Amino acid sequence: MPALSSWNDGIAKQAILGYLARVTAANGSAYVPPEARVAVFDNDGTLWCEKPNYTQLDFFVSELRLAANVRPELAERPEYAALLAGDHAGIAALGIERIALALVELCAGLQPEEFEQRARDFVMTNVHTDRQVPYAEMVYQPMLELLDILRAHAFEVFIVSGGGTEFVRAVSRQLYGVKPERVVGTLVAYEYVRRNGVPMLVRTSSLYGEANEGRAKVSHIQAHLGRRPIFGAGNSAGDREMLEYAAASGERGLAILVDHDDGEREYSYASEAGTFKAPEAITDTAQELGWTVVSMKNDWTKVFADK
Amino acid sequence: MPALSSWNDGIAKQAILGYLARVTAANGSAYVPPEARVAVFDNDGTLWCEKPNYTQLDFFVSELRLAANVRPELAERPEYAALLAGDHAGIAALGIERIALALVELCAGLQPEEFEQRARDFVMTNVHTDRQVPYAEMVYQPMLELLDILRAHAFEVFIVSGGGTEFVRAVSRQLYGVKPERVVGTLVAYEYVRRNGVPMLVRTSSLYGEANEGRAKVSHIQAHLGRRPIFGAGNSAGDREMLEYAAASGERGLAILVDHDDGEREYSYASEAGTFKAPEAITDTAQELGWTVVSMKNDWTKVFADK
Repeated sequence: MPALSSWNDGIAKQAILGYLARVTAANGSAYVPPEARVAVFDNDGTLWCEKPNYTQLDFFVSELRLAANVRPELAERPEYAALLAGDHAGIAALGIERIALALVELCAGLQPEEFEQRARDFVMTNVHTDRQVPYAEMVYQPMLELLDILRAHAFEVFIVSGGGTEFVRAVSRQLYGVKPERVVGTLVAYEYVRRNGVPMLVRTSSLYGEANEGRAKVSHIQAHLGRRPIFGAGNSAGDREMLEYAAASGERGLAILVDHDDGEREYSYASEAGTFKAPEAITDTAQELGWTVVSMKNDWTKVFADK
Repeated sequence: MPALSSWNDGIAKQAILGYLARVTAANGSAYVPPEARVAVFDNDGTLWCEKPNYTQLDFFVSELRLAANVRPELAERPEYAALLAGDHAGIAALGIERIALALVELCAGLQPEEFEQRARDFVMTNVHTDRQVPYAEMVYQPMLELLDILRAHAFEVFIVSGGGTEFVRAVSRQLYGVKPERVVGTLVAYEYVRRNGVPMLVRTSSLYGEANEGRAKVSHIQAHLGRRPIFGAGNSAGDREMLEYAAASGERGLAILVDHDDGEREYSYASEAGTFKAPEAITDTAQELGWTVVSMKNDWTKVFADK
């Protein structure tokens, strides 16, 4: 049985262990049969680091630089100009949504396998701006242990990310042991075409359905999993509804909120979702609704995996 | 190793066995690693009987009758009136799409678990109009054996149905051993609401995205699986693109078309998808594109499972 060996023996660890004992005790009042043991995890800021930028944004900017070398006229578009110049004020003025959609456009025409290969190569080989280690090493070791202990208790683990579905899928198996079909993210629409008689899918420049944040996370869980999660982990206002939904199963449910309070080993910040304006800090919501708050500073003996 | 014991030793069976040997031969030119062994199956007419009506239509009409007992005014709506009267000409005149959307409306407001329970009860206990056995027994025994032999060769099996996702999921585990998240169908939109402070999802009266037929099946495979299928089985024009996509992997791909040519043991009909007008019979497309055609009459020793 895997242990939560990078977790200090505090309230959070005890809450997790108590929960797992409760829902797997065959004669207990909170017993859940294996086929209903469904766990959902946010990705950015929950399973891996999301600062100073979302990894996916760094990837897209890297793609943009490569493309701009070949097509300098790309720099004339305001969204791309701001990104290429690293103009934070300009980016903020345009808004993350407009920036994100411009970046989706950049990759239009690619086949899914081409896009995934590029994303995978970026995460595995490029280095994080601050830390100078590959992005792949910016995964939280204690959360990997949490995935392991859930699986050892017959939970099935899904990732429900605000990030692009294909981007997360490109690395989910390698980083988290999660198969592509178990990743639910923001979807880009694909078009079915025949090129020289060969049928294939190509990325378009628009989304298919809503961005996967907030309430949409819950609808997409239904659309994709068809099962109600009883365990949820997140870190931002964009995870609120998903965590409420998981916690609504009473003693059979558990919601975990990762609090980024460790400015020394990681980053210290009040979590907020990309395009979300929450009326209060998500840690306040967590207290109010009885979720288990995980302090990165106090609950974890280490943040990142040893090499 | 499960055998295709209800299959006669003909071209179709040999094509399947040859394919499985080819893609699993570790040193062969067509070898496919287990993580890329993805198989997709249509449901209606491919895994179970779709005549004289789609099972889902029979279910909805049964729901409609129950609802009309309580709310007789439902019978004033033309779509419902035609269904309640069994007025085939009226149904055809209104069109299957309009009928289907009216039926989706009928179940608006239900939570997913409520809808699934009703669907499951219907399939397990109600009897098929012609055959007088539960719908659950209208599954094709040879296709169950095909699912088994694929799994024994480390294939992962998904159902990609034009039917409602929740309807198929309600019975997929019990009938086919397929988990809910491995069913891709036509999606109804769900709304996230709080009732007396309890967060829940309720069905709306509209679809989320396109109906899962034709080209949409392929885009939805990407959206949902994130992997390219190399094996596909279908029976209608609505499966054409999915089968083309599976077959496009050359010697690593196989497309199977079930031909309903057995009027004695099942039904004899030229397959067509619900709302699809195909320019030619799908069996002609199959010949032209080199798919493996399965004759229910000649290739199967039995059609339905023994009790």
